[in-house]
Amino acid sequence: MPQDDLLDQLRQELRRGSVVLASLVALEQPGYGYGLLDALERAGFPVAANTLYPLLRRLESQGLLTSEWDTTEARPRKFYRTSADGIRVATQLRTEWSAIDTALTALEIATTTTTSTPGDPS
Amino acid sequence: MPQDDLLDQLRQELRRGSVVLASLVALEQPGYGYGLLDALERAGFPVAANTLYPLLRRLESQGLLTSEWDTTEARPRKFYRTSADGIRVATQLRTEWSAIDTALTALEIATTTTTSTPGDPS
Repeated sequence: MPQDDLLDQLRQELRRGSVVLASLVALEQPGYGYGLLDALERAGFPVAANTLYPLLRRLESQGLLTSEWDTTEARPRKFYRTSADGIRVATQLRTEWSAIDTALTALEIATTTTTSTPGDPS
Repeated sequence: MPQDDLLDQLRQELRRGSVVLASLVALEQPGYGYGLLDALERAGFPVAANTLYPLLRRLESQGLLTSEWDTTEARPRKFYRTSADGIRVATQLRTEWSAIDTALTALEIATTTTTSTPGDPS
């Protein structure tokens, strides 16, 4: 259909807010950026590396993630962990997500069970 | 907590993508902007009028909504309806939403059932 680009754009918008939540949830178990990419992909939430890495740095600067360097191998690697603030934010975003999910379902039910049109007093 | 502004911002990001989907779903039953505001609020999805009205005009210009003027009253009012393209887009966004929901649940399960740390071979 001619709306393919538009659909992609709207799909991205839908994902954009949830990738923060997904990252905070996943990193309650500490992990590398690469490991997180893989975990998100396996969970059915593919994110581009050049989207995720800047996001992780942003979440760290916002205090929602902490990071440490793993120097046990030749090439030091940074790993991330969701902070206590991050866990609180994730919990509240999860509640928000569930509220939106419930609202969408309520709208679908309202749409399929009501046949009135605007101005129709019935 | 000091992260209140940040939480609000992340919450907005989470809602931003879903308000398009909610509007397309709700307007499968035609309605005025004001009626939609009310329907969204009742479903537990409060949206500011100055967010929703420009969005409706945008969705119309993108071909996802159609509009007509109701001139049966002294002051003509525009009402919107989700177009055939809009219904297709809504269906696909709903699928996307459910996929994200499933992925979030999978990540939560993975986080709560796995205790390994990075580099831990177990």
